[in-house]
Amino acid sequence: MTTTTARSTMTIGDFLLRRLREAGISHLFGVAGDYNLEFLLQMEDRDEFTWVGNCNELNASYAADGYARLNGISGLVVTHGVGAWSAINGVAGAYSEHVPVVCVCGSLPLKALDRKLLMHHTSGGTEYDDVMRGYAQVTVAQARLTPQNAVTEIDRLILTAWQRKLPVYMELPSDIAYLDVEVPPEPLELAMPPSDPERLSTCADAIVARLSSARSPVILVDIDADRFDVTGELMELAGRMQLPIAAVNTVKGLIDETSPYFLGLYAGAGSKPEIREMVENSDCLLAIGVRRVDTTSGGFSDALPAGRIDARGDAVDIGSDNYQAVYLKELLRRVVDKAPARTSGYSRRAEMPQEPSAAVMSGPLTQAAYWSMVQDFIREGDVLIAEDGTSEAGCWGLQLPPKCSIVTQAVWGSIGYSVGSVLGTLLAAPKRRHLLFVGDGAFQLTAQEVSTVLRHDLKPVIFLINNGGYTVERTICGKQGHFNDIANWAYAELPKVLHPGTTARTFVVRTPAELKEALAAPHDSMIFIEAVMDKYDAPQLIIDSGHGMAEVDYGPRGPQHRPGVQL
Amino acid sequence: MTTTTARSTMTIGDFLLRRLREAGISHLFGVAGDYNLEFLLQMEDRDEFTWVGNCNELNASYAADGYARLNGISGLVVTHGVGAWSAINGVAGAYSEHVPVVCVCGSLPLKALDRKLLMHHTSGGTEYDDVMRGYAQVTVAQARLTPQNAVTEIDRLILTAWQRKLPVYMELPSDIAYLDVEVPPEPLELAMPPSDPERLSTCADAIVARLSSARSPVILVDIDADRFDVTGELMELAGRMQLPIAAVNTVKGLIDETSPYFLGLYAGAGSKPEIREMVENSDCLLAIGVRRVDTTSGGFSDALPAGRIDARGDAVDIGSDNYQAVYLKELLRRVVDKAPARTSGYSRRAEMPQEPSAAVMSGPLTQAAYWSMVQDFIREGDVLIAEDGTSEAGCWGLQLPPKCSIVTQAVWGSIGYSVGSVLGTLLAAPKRRHLLFVGDGAFQLTAQEVSTVLRHDLKPVIFLINNGGYTVERTICGKQGHFNDIANWAYAELPKVLHPGTTARTFVVRTPAELKEALAAPHDSMIFIEAVMDKYDAPQLIIDSGHGMAEVDYGPRGPQHRPGVQL
Repeated sequence: MTTTTARSTMTIGDFLLRRLREAGISHLFGVAGDYNLEFLLQMEDRDEFTWVGNCNELNASYAADGYARLNGISGLVVTHGVGAWSAINGVAGAYSEHVPVVCVCGSLPLKALDRKLLMHHTSGGTEYDDVMRGYAQVTVAQARLTPQNAVTEIDRLILTAWQRKLPVYMELPSDIAYLDVEVPPEPLELAMPPSDPERLSTCADAIVARLSSARSPVILVDIDADRFDVTGELMELAGRMQLPIAAVNTVKGLIDETSPYFLGLYAGAGSKPEIREMVENSDCLLAIGVRRVDTTSGGFSDALPAGRIDARGDAVDIGSDNYQAVYLKELLRRVVDKAPARTSGYSRRAEMPQEPSAAVMSGPLTQAAYWSMVQDFIREGDVLIAEDGTSEAGCWGLQLPPKCSIVTQAVWGSIGYSVGSVLGTLLAAPKRRHLLFVGDGAFQLTAQEVSTVLRHDLKPVIFLINNGGYTVERTICGKQGHFNDIANWAYAELPKVLHPGTTARTFVVRTPAELKEALAAPHDSMIFIEAVMDKYDAPQLIIDSGHGMAEVDYGPRGPQHRPGVQL
Repeated sequence: MTTTTARSTMTIGDFLLRRLREAGISHLFGVAGDYNLEFLLQMEDRDEFTWVGNCNELNASYAADGYARLNGISGLVVTHGVGAWSAINGVAGAYSEHVPVVCVCGSLPLKALDRKLLMHHTSGGTEYDDVMRGYAQVTVAQARLTPQNAVTEIDRLILTAWQRKLPVYMELPSDIAYLDVEVPPEPLELAMPPSDPERLSTCADAIVARLSSARSPVILVDIDADRFDVTGELMELAGRMQLPIAAVNTVKGLIDETSPYFLGLYAGAGSKPEIREMVENSDCLLAIGVRRVDTTSGGFSDALPAGRIDARGDAVDIGSDNYQAVYLKELLRRVVDKAPARTSGYSRRAEMPQEPSAAVMSGPLTQAAYWSMVQDFIREGDVLIAEDGTSEAGCWGLQLPPKCSIVTQAVWGSIGYSVGSVLGTLLAAPKRRHLLFVGDGAFQLTAQEVSTVLRHDLKPVIFLINNGGYTVERTICGKQGHFNDIANWAYAELPKVLHPGTTARTFVVRTPAELKEALAAPHDSMIFIEAVMDKYDAPQLIIDSGHGMAEVDYGPRGPQHRPGVQL
């Protein structure tokens, strides 16, 4: 028995582009290079994508990560060796933080591999798999395309990225992009496979039974609740059963903080006592993708109840029972449909943000005044891109209006990420307002990407803290260490250098009154606010976290107990 | 029988620092991070090193590469995961270009590995070896230090880097830097092991015999002639036997171009006919470390004589004979000592640089006028840091005064390299004049490192070509491709943003007369010359090379034959 499907012919490059488009990607990030130019020409000829030429590949990988977080998936184009290695930190971040990025590496011609030719952008030898072996450490699937495997591998990689919410890496040899292959006519369908029916049903029943009989059920969400797009199901479940939902700091903002079901952030000893008590003493904790990482668990001070339900993207643990082939969204849909409605349970009143004292609001700008004014500035639907360190800690302390998103790297924590990432989030969600929070130290790693933001006429509000160095590191070790000092830049002058003639509104503020004036500026262009603050001023949260980190990192013989060595 | 050696106790961090210093390193490059802070504090406490805090790790790795090229070896300090992956492209470049960089990665505490803790700056799992596996692709040796192995591994890695002229990678777990270990009192001696006496003697005799009986002997040098520091021996040999020495483009400038024995650059069909004829028809070609890479062999148009002598760092091939355990510098010393003096042989007169026509020197600035004026500007002893592409091609066309060095990546070719590298070369050779040649496209990748150059009060002359994009890529594919266009920056304004109050002398020049004026400026601070030129103007060498590269990269079905697709 044979089935006949109409197949047509396309070049490999065209087919890859078609699949990327069908996957919902309309922007491609990257840098032109010797081995990808023919593919970029194919892209330009098809006229289906906006090419976002980045200043460098690391920034491109960060942008692709930011784009994928709001778009569901993204594409990154680099060139062999130099480009791929430059991008790998951003792809590793996507791997750590569960972000599906399809990395297409315009690669060495197959001819070179066949003939053992020594090529530029290589080690000068014949270890042609070296970059792929590197990427095998930071992606869930890899392939070198050939005319024989291209159709199969392109689909496998894109689908795997989407299903696993992880990055993938493919090498497109430069001499095959224009070769014709036979391709299927059907569009690529991004979908999870159906769960095993019995496993799904049994698992959903077990969860419903546990939740129904529990006295103090709580939901706790981590990154995968966002990545597998189950917030709607969780909110429905919470509403139906009157359940409190707590969040790990990785996904602050994912659960509407004005919802009566939002409990707050859970971070072990770093949590508010009432939240800690409810999570740790729950007799039925439904944990969605929770990972116990030092920076997300209050330095391992967490204590989740032993009998919890651990639901991951594709498997579930309930006590001694393990369920495979059960996919998260389908599972939660089933749980919601089977869950009994309850009329009483958890409900809380939203707290009011604490107003700072009048003293704080006069005099030089402090972190306390700064974040209080940021609190007043944010509004429904904002995207907050929060750099690791002070900015992230500041954002964690905010009370968010509905439909806000925080984009941050609470696990990977690569400084500089936010400046690349905001380019991606802006392009993925052009109707939302994007606020970038970044410190001077982090900004210097990737500052040039502001150029690309301006080039594409994008209009974020950039909150840059100028306080002379790596504040988060000062809290860990080296309060006065020169290695934590950085060069001082005239940050607010940068937009006009990177985009002569820009209409960006730039401000240097040193007092709350100056910040207030900047925040009142019309938002008709990029707004760039350089806020100058004392180098030893920091949110308490980052100080506590830094001291905890030093204990974990350096142990009892570390230098952290030396007087004055920590902020 | 036991030997007793006085041993003393040091912390692991202190011992590592001591060994780096003993290896001749006095500057360390890198970025502070959570897992290296305790090591940086040890460094600051010892007060033996200048810490060069870079803006980001990629730039740091480029700077370490540049430093090692002029200093012999260098040290790079990064933090686990984020820092190490960000630096890997620069380390891969050092691997490709044979540069000994010791990469010290402040890494996860051993406690975390023992207890299987999930840490930030990781994938969020327990694959603790992932970064090391990545670095195994781009370094010659790797180790994770432990209290048991630290003394042995530190010495093994530093010595291996120096002996092999390749980078190495070591992970220093954050919780052991302050632990005491017993260490040897002797300083580390950087030396090659002695060659096997019989092999050395037989090999030297064979080479001398071949050279003595040859009618048309020629020496051809590639990177390793520089890295293994044998220029002196080669010049002696050339002088003694009146031999011509040709160079591959990787090491232009290594052989004094004013020497009567300098033949010129050899690049297959890209060579001058007389040089090609002499190299390819030599009846005894002594090839020093010659690798046949597309970009160094005129796109594989080279044709070295089959019976040549191939001398590498640690082995030699002469016809069917292979010699192991024969080390290059010792071998060449022996060859020089045994070689018969000849009174006649090769000698040439230096060519005079061609003067451009008066027409070229009026009107807008062209590449022809630019490089002619650069020719007049360079002087004995200059270090020219030449970015891949137009700048590199321009520098290859120069006739260099004695004792000049060109630092470039003819094999790895990672754009942006030069801007990081110049920081390293400046610190390694502070008494020489350093000229950075870079195009706008490459500059944007790593531009922020100019900040670090200014912060350390270094005074390069920066020649930046502003011509709107990736010229080298336009010659390959996409003359008008938008993917080869970049944002326009006000480049010359950058120094004062990156170092407010700088005394850098900045110029934007559009005519030969303006360039002349800029070149006449007193060199009492950084000189930054932004030269605006037509986007389709390029040295012929880069055009020819780009066309050749497109044939190798894209094959017969590639787009390069489409009219107008190439510059």
